[in-house]
Amino acid sequence: MTRLLSLARVFGLMLMVFSITYLLPILTSLLFGDGTAGLFVADMCFTLGAGALLWFATRRFVRDLKAKDGFLLVVLAWTGMAAFATIPLVSYLESLSFTDAYFETMSGLTTTGATTLSGLDQLPPAINLWRHELNWLGGMGIIVLAVAILPVLGVGGRQLFMAETPGPMKDSKLTPRITETAKNLWLVYGTITALCILALKAAGMSWLDAVCHAFATMGLGGFSTHDASVGYFNSPAIEGILIVFMLLAGMNFATHFQALRSKSLEPYRQDIEAMPYLVLMIGSCLGIALYLWLQGTYASYWSALRHASFNLVSIATDCGFSSTDFNQWPIFAPLWMLFLSCICSCTGSTGGGIKMMRTMILVKQSELQMFLLTHPTSVNPLKLGTLVVPSNIMLSVLGFIFVYFMSIVILTLLLVMSGLDFVSAFSAILACINNAGPGLGQVGPATNYGSLTDFQVWTCTLAMFLGRIEVFTALILLTPAYWRK
Amino acid sequence: MTRLLSLARVFGLMLMVFSITYLLPILTSLLFGDGTAGLFVADMCFTLGAGALLWFATRRFVRDLKAKDGFLLVVLAWTGMAAFATIPLVSYLESLSFTDAYFETMSGLTTTGATTLSGLDQLPPAINLWRHELNWLGGMGIIVLAVAILPVLGVGGRQLFMAETPGPMKDSKLTPRITETAKNLWLVYGTITALCILALKAAGMSWLDAVCHAFATMGLGGFSTHDASVGYFNSPAIEGILIVFMLLAGMNFATHFQALRSKSLEPYRQDIEAMPYLVLMIGSCLGIALYLWLQGTYASYWSALRHASFNLVSIATDCGFSSTDFNQWPIFAPLWMLFLSCICSCTGSTGGGIKMMRTMILVKQSELQMFLLTHPTSVNPLKLGTLVVPSNIMLSVLGFIFVYFMSIVILTLLLVMSGLDFVSAFSAILACINNAGPGLGQVGPATNYGSLTDFQVWTCTLAMFLGRIEVFTALILLTPAYWRK
Ligand SMILES: [K+]
Ligand SMILES: [K+]
Repeated sequence: MTRLLSLARVFGLMLMVFSITYLLPILTSLLFGDGTAGLFVADMCFTLGAGALLWFATRRFVRDLKAKDGFLLVVLAWTGMAAFATIPLVSYLESLSFTDAYFETMSGLTTTGATTLSGLDQLPPAINLWRHELNWLGGMGIIVLAVAILPVLGVGGRQLFMAETPGPMKDSKLTPRITETAKNLWLVYGTITALCILALKAAGMSWLDAVCHAFATMGLGGFSTHDASVGYFNSPAIEGILIVFMLLAGMNFATHFQALRSKSLEPYRQDIEAMPYLVLMIGSCLGIALYLWLQGTYASYWSALRHASFNLVSIATDCGFSSTDFNQWPIFAPLWMLFLSCICSCTGSTGGGIKMMRTMILVKQSELQMFLLTHPTSVNPLKLGTLVVPSNIMLSVLGFIFVYFMSIVILTLLLVMSGLDFVSAFSAILACINNAGPGLGQVGPATNYGSLTDFQVWTCTLAMFLGRIEVFTALILLTPAYWRK
Repeated sequence: MTRLLSLARVFGLMLMVFSITYLLPILTSLLFGDGTAGLFVADMCFTLGAGALLWFATRRFVRDLKAKDGFLLVVLAWTGMAAFATIPLVSYLESLSFTDAYFETMSGLTTTGATTLSGLDQLPPAINLWRHELNWLGGMGIIVLAVAILPVLGVGGRQLFMAETPGPMKDSKLTPRITETAKNLWLVYGTITALCILALKAAGMSWLDAVCHAFATMGLGGFSTHDASVGYFNSPAIEGILIVFMLLAGMNFATHFQALRSKSLEPYRQDIEAMPYLVLMIGSCLGIALYLWLQGTYASYWSALRHASFNLVSIATDCGFSSTDFNQWPIFAPLWMLFLSCICSCTGSTGGGIKMMRTMILVKQSELQMFLLTHPTSVNPLKLGTLVVPSNIMLSVLGFIFVYFMSIVILTLLLVMSGLDFVSAFSAILACINNAGPGLGQVGPATNYGSLTDFQVWTCTLAMFLGRIEVFTALILLTPAYWRK
């Protein structure tokens, strides 16, 4: 009980910090005079008040957090903040149901970027900025989750990814190390975001669009201020800039940090995920462009390459922008993009899916098994670069991937049972659990998730939440073992 | 080189034995006077001659087979025999291409039961019997493959399943133990087949139909002598009998053997796969019947239960009969059936997919991972019943499942790239790699694989072959390590 109360205290503090983020939409509203400032001020006070109340009521329960507490805190943080963040949306858009609003804020904070809203172009600037800020804040949260929290919790073999974080690990105090790591990573995250804003402005976007799209890019969220997404701008320069920053956001921010600190590209060479990630991306762009050109979707290879590159990088990094309705392409192309969205983005990035590191472990493990079949007596450890992967970590990674696939199967069957067609259901779950955004069919890039029933929207909300916190973090809360002393 | 020649010698012997199986269609042809006896005699002589020639040319290369040789021999046996078995089909059906004929015989020998033929009702009795005999012989081959060969080869954690086979294992001589095991298992297989023939005859089938359908049932092949499959008979009695024998054929034949020898049901209680297999089957039948009834597909629960039970058991055991066009059902029902076809059938049965044993290992491993997250210091081995599963076997099982899923992804993408729609492509590959038979959409139970292009037919042929020999057995032949001394 005191454990729960001390967690409530931390959550109260988190809410109070979260309320500060309302300053940005308030400022935007005042700047543009869009009349929503009052709403955001009210919500800010409400969130701050709720946080303060919670903290005040539990202030005596100061306790060091243990690794085990992390599971509940992560779940609380994502679900709770998404709930508070709905207030400006439901107050301004009176026709918006809580179901759709919660989908929207969860989509923002998990950086999925799927939306149930249409008429984005007509939304007040402050509302749009708020949606995009959720993408950006979600990205921050994810980086800390990926680099500092999940490794300590040991979810899905994440222990392996702790190499770069200094200090002791195991079951020791969570807070000091996370604070230190977070500070460094956010510095990098902020710096690259600033560069992205300037580049987009230079390429012709308005300041508002530049800030919003930079937020959506760095968090790999993929929200847009336009129903036509990036297709609205129809600008190769903007698409090129976004491709570069999406690729950066899909890499490990710890690597970016080391590269910035050492002012050298050497860390990228040592990052074992970076090369396969880039090779797979660039190879797929060239290949899919060739396929679309041969299929006659585009008359010239160059325009095929332009559209294939932007949309493929966007889906494969789990960003989710679109520049054209790729749902109309021969279906092999979007399926390949969805496949990449499962496996491509790097550990410690703001992308989703199983991550390149785990993909590499799977591939190596299969190769090793094949080798062992012809050499049954040899003892070969699994190696990634110079890193030996112990078999308990292997099992943990494989267990994670199994649970991830089973979640896809079960959630897809739920959607299908509720009456959705198979392609829409399967692609919606893939797009949500990988935090990519648009799917195919009824939830394709030209439409959105607004046509789904409430049950289907909640299923998709669950998918993006589970995908973001790596499934196990939530499942474990359902086991009696977690709640035992 | 001498290794290859000694394998060629064994393959020659296998062909000579295989030629004996032509006696049954020859006898049938003479009995029914359908005029195809000459064809089968010619093919028998050709197969016998080819086998004898191969054996004679390599007769000096007598060598004990090592485990490693098993991979090549298994691949040779399936692909080679399927090739020889096409001769009666292409000779009689002049319009049939080699592609479609090879699909048909591979489908028969892998007990997939998918067909490119239509007008089955009009085929000569001997041709139909030949197709069904391939199902039955394939079933025999599969039982030996599963119980005696794959465990020795160590494919996908199969070592674990060796408990029941006596004698030494490891890298020792293959032949004597396989012979002994095979003799016992075939005795059981033959006995149950005979019972099935008698039961089907008693329920009103002609002798020919009874023999053909009993062959297709025991091998879980699912070929039929009628385009409408078992729906042709429209008989609850026949469907009931087939359900019982399909369920039997989906269980471990080693368990059947022990039960027969000990004249007790105790071995079924000790078979750790049997109970989850039956519970999953019966629970799914009741659930899907309820779903179809609630959806209004059937007016009464009982007729929903009749059709759900037959078609679900048929697909879930990977048999592949159909009594109605379940492609017209709300898609959740057939998707659930396809899902079961991946995971349900037991080790040492004639079914396909990843097998119940591996499904259980996956589920237990995920539970264990979850437990370890909250108890990081505890050392808990993975147990199935009283059997401890060592972590190298776990890794082997998980490696197998990864390669199996990747095969599904790659082969589906190949079909989609060739222009097939996603539902047809995905369900065709699932139905083929699990050796189940009918898929959905263009390859649903009311149609067949005849409308596919040659490229698509070869892709499906590859899928059923890979599924049957558990992928690794073929992949390993592509590694340089296999061919090194
Ligand atoms: K996204
Ligand atoms: K079958």
